Amino acid sequence: MNWQRRPRCDQTPAWPLLQAHAAQRFKGLTSGPQALAQTFAPTFDLRRAFTQDRQRFARWSFDAPPLWADLSKNLIDVEAQRLLNQLAHECGVAALRDAMLRGERINTSEQRAVTHVHGRWAGVDASSFDASNWPLTLVQQAQEAIQKIASIPPDAARIRSDMLDFAEAVRAEGVFTDVVNIGIGGSDLGPRMVVQALRSGGHAAGGPRVHFVANMDGHELAELLPQLNAARTLFIIASKTFGTAETMRNAASARDWFVAQGGQGVARHFVALSANAEAAGAFGAGRCFAFDEGVGGRYSLWSSIGLSIAIAVGRAGFEDLLRGARATDAHFATAPLARNLPVQLALIDLWYRNVLHLGSRCIAPYHHGLRRLPAYLQQLEMESNGKGVDGHGQRLAVASAPITWGEAGSNGQHAFFQMLHQGSDVVPVEFVLVRQPAHTLPGHHDKLLTNALAQARALMQGQPGDAPERHFPGNRPSTVLLLPDLSPHSLGALLALYEHRTLALGALWGINSFDQWGVELGKRHAGEIEAALHGGDASGLDASTQSLLAQIRCD
Amino acid sequence: MNWQRRPRCDQTPAWPLLQAHAAQRFKGLTSGPQALAQTFAPTFDLRRAFTQDRQRFARWSFDAPPLWADLSKNLIDVEAQRLLNQLAHECGVAALRDAMLRGERINTSEQRAVTHVHGRWAGVDASSFDASNWPLTLVQQAQEAIQKIASIPPDAARIRSDMLDFAEAVRAEGVFTDVVNIGIGGSDLGPRMVVQALRSGGHAAGGPRVHFVANMDGHELAELLPQLNAARTLFIIASKTFGTAETMRNAASARDWFVAQGGQGVARHFVALSANAEAAGAFGAGRCFAFDEGVGGRYSLWSSIGLSIAIAVGRAGFEDLLRGARATDAHFATAPLARNLPVQLALIDLWYRNVLHLGSRCIAPYHHGLRRLPAYLQQLEMESNGKGVDGHGQRLAVASAPITWGEAGSNGQHAFFQMLHQGSDVVPVEFVLVRQPAHTLPGHHDKLLTNALAQARALMQGQPGDAPERHFPGNRPSTVLLLPDLSPHSLGALLALYEHRTLALGALWGINSFDQWGVELGKRHAGEIEAALHGGDASGLDASTQSLLAQIRCD
Repeated sequence: MNWQRRPRCDQTPAWPLLQAHAAQRFKGLTSGPQALAQTFAPTFDLRRAFTQDRQRFARWSFDAPPLWADLSKNLIDVEAQRLLNQLAHECGVAALRDAMLRGERINTSEQRAVTHVHGRWAGVDASSFDASNWPLTLVQQAQEAIQKIASIPPDAARIRSDMLDFAEAVRAEGVFTDVVNIGIGGSDLGPRMVVQALRSGGHAAGGPRVHFVANMDGHELAELLPQLNAARTLFIIASKTFGTAETMRNAASARDWFVAQGGQGVARHFVALSANAEAAGAFGAGRCFAFDEGVGGRYSLWSSIGLSIAIAVGRAGFEDLLRGARATDAHFATAPLARNLPVQLALIDLWYRNVLHLGSRCIAPYHHGLRRLPAYLQQLEMESNGKGVDGHGQRLAVASAPITWGEAGSNGQHAFFQMLHQGSDVVPVEFVLVRQPAHTLPGHHDKLLTNALAQARALMQGQPGDAPERHFPGNRPSTVLLLPDLSPHSLGALLALYEHRTLALGALWGINSFDQWGVELGKRHAGEIEAALHGGDASGLDASTQSLLAQIRCD
Repeated sequence: MNWQRRPRCDQTPAWPLLQAHAAQRFKGLTSGPQALAQTFAPTFDLRRAFTQDRQRFARWSFDAPPLWADLSKNLIDVEAQRLLNQLAHECGVAALRDAMLRGERINTSEQRAVTHVHGRWAGVDASSFDASNWPLTLVQQAQEAIQKIASIPPDAARIRSDMLDFAEAVRAEGVFTDVVNIGIGGSDLGPRMVVQALRSGGHAAGGPRVHFVANMDGHELAELLPQLNAARTLFIIASKTFGTAETMRNAASARDWFVAQGGQGVARHFVALSANAEAAGAFGAGRCFAFDEGVGGRYSLWSSIGLSIAIAVGRAGFEDLLRGARATDAHFATAPLARNLPVQLALIDLWYRNVLHLGSRCIAPYHHGLRRLPAYLQQLEMESNGKGVDGHGQRLAVASAPITWGEAGSNGQHAFFQMLHQGSDVVPVEFVLVRQPAHTLPGHHDKLLTNALAQARALMQGQPGDAPERHFPGNRPSTVLLLPDLSPHSLGALLALYEHRTLALGALWGINSFDQWGVELGKRHAGEIEAALHGGDASGLDASTQSLLAQIRCD
């Protein structure tokens, strides 16, 4: 199939069949008070599904080493899965995936190739898999995948190598006790989450302390500065354009502080991660690590934007992160769609969103180190697929990205899980579990995993209440994603899984998942309002904004 | 009206009128692709509403000192507001409020009074308002409110005074460089968020460092311990029952570590915040600060559970926090419903949830110090009102608590705001702004506030696109809550506002907002699964959980 002429999900033969199947077998299984009404006589009952089909667990278990997933507790049956697989074929998910890997300009509105995967594979050749200790099938998948991946930018391997050399030097020389990454959005959420996770996982030791500053709000930077010694601090300024308002403001304030502290050598203490080397040089950054135009911000932690990660975990750790992502890339590129984990996750996401009409998905990472995974995924998923038009500029006819939200477990159990169990909305919960802890405190980890399984079980099983307030409807869906440990390798695989799931879901919706025009309008208004706040002409503003300005200025 | 015989919203005369009004004037203004379709010909258009009604901004501005709110950019008109006010009267919101203040047992399933407000007013008398520097109307409101507040537990003032004496001693003596609050849910989210906020606001200086540990996941405690010196550390164990699994596990691990480090005097280094003094004593805690049975976990930061706050900000700061909350209490207790800010917020929440059928509300605090406000509100709102039955045990006929989610601004603009502007769902956004910063970095704060106003404006105004992907539908709602500063006084007022809004919304739905039976089932399953994980009999478990256990154990 030509990737440019793929139909949207609602334009396929499978679509009416899916809707008809749901109307017959999944009636009433949706949010709102009807969800409470179907308690013990639902049209589809998860509990019954397990007793009627001994193969259900095996059927919905997926291996994508180092990851493993259990999708069996979702509100889905064999026929729905068959139709969803038909949908994936009819929508040309594989065609779009392969076009991305070939380096075609699948980001159509910006006429760009999408190259974050290429960056991960730069410098890799088929023979190098011997050293990977990967299962044989995965080595074969990788060798097959590498045939599909074309157009790797010629300098990608060198740029990464320069960045890793620099990171290693920072770690080895010991001049810098503190490193501050200044960036926002994709230049912050990914690196911040990965450094936090690998610190918890025990893989970020031995280097300088790594901090992150993102917000335009000066309180974030102002709280950090007193903890720093200018002579021992390295600032990383991360902005693809080197024009992001927040990052430029924070960078300027950091430089002012550095100079005011008597800091010597701005060029040694400030480096840039940017596609705009000229602006970075004008700012005074001594080094500028390049940023390929084909790498979108929310897909960029694998690139030079990952410098803070590389400083925290070292070259070997960063390469393991890439290696883990490549394992998922190879799986995504080669596994049949029916056993392709990111594709299957995307199909269930679509089923919930557009067939059962559920409005959100809850991410529950049962690991303190993954507590910012939901915030990272909010950008990845909602910025990629929170769109109103398809790739041809046609208005969408079905709902796009739902709300992605969540908090680390077991904390959530003592906060919003009440609503997941007894509220009026059905919210699919995604449990992310890590088998092996990196600490040695006894008695914690078993209880942690046990709690996650218990929640998944309770959501499904429910309980007839002896009193109405103790009644649990049950039949509520969940997914388990299992990592062997929280290592760079496992984490890389997990994040690539989410990236590909996002692309696959965008492919089903017909969305260009790689632009973000929705962030532009607010930027334009900000300039106009700032002028008015400083006494400029406010007459062009709407009445509401004018009145708000007056209130804020205490007029 | 008798508070026990209040009708639910769907049982009032106002209800069908509201639905009919919406069907006529707000048709199609809901989530899903239809939201994208009504772009420039909606039945209700915010832009037109402002040009047609010069009073719109003033009409929907609310003063509740020290807070101020702009509700004018919501999808609502004068007739809807009139009907919603009728609904508030018919549902007896004031009757439930007054019953709470009188100390009646409005937590019916547990047969308890709800006394977190009483705790805030303990030891206060009408004459003390002279010193408050409050506006005269607020002093009058407070004097009126105090007439309504009965049944203040006789020892509440003494318990608080003991707690504050202890906090002051910890601050003054300087024995402890570090304080670790071990608790989860309400014993963590409130204190953690408040300490973080007031630290940003410049109000938490001079005392020891204050840390928080909540998660069953041992990585949270394991990361903290190496930073501590046992001889200089105070552990606060916060659990109403002194039986919360996570807290007991973390407390035991902390005590083991303390002893292993050669720590002397467990009783001096461990104090408890609990209603179960006996268990706290058996654990070895030297002091136990009491916890009134009428104070629910998610409403408890004002009580002994706030010890970590008091240590961080001192007695004066803690008393300012209470004073701010009392300002909102007085407003809630006495302002007419039509000008009562928490009630008006609750009515709009209900309008969006049950009339326009929106599934979530986004909290966007434009302050780094308030970055955990959304997590705190998730518990407050979703645990309070994420229920399936009303206070009489009848199944609800309308949807209850929606998803509360969000991240600090301006960060969100570079993450999920794409979806808010151009996605298929209408998501009301709540901007929380702070007028005065506590830092002196130039150029940040104006831009921060400007960005918030620009986003609110862009959501409303939209933009006809020159290209389809640059088209913004607009007509998307938002609210602005404005604080003069991030002081204990302002923050106390804000949090009490959210508490009362939650009660008012629960009153409209007929829900008991003060129990949380939905957290019980998972706890029960956890014990059974843990036994199986350790080789016990798994045959009582469902097939799915058995298989998951085998996978996790690597069978």
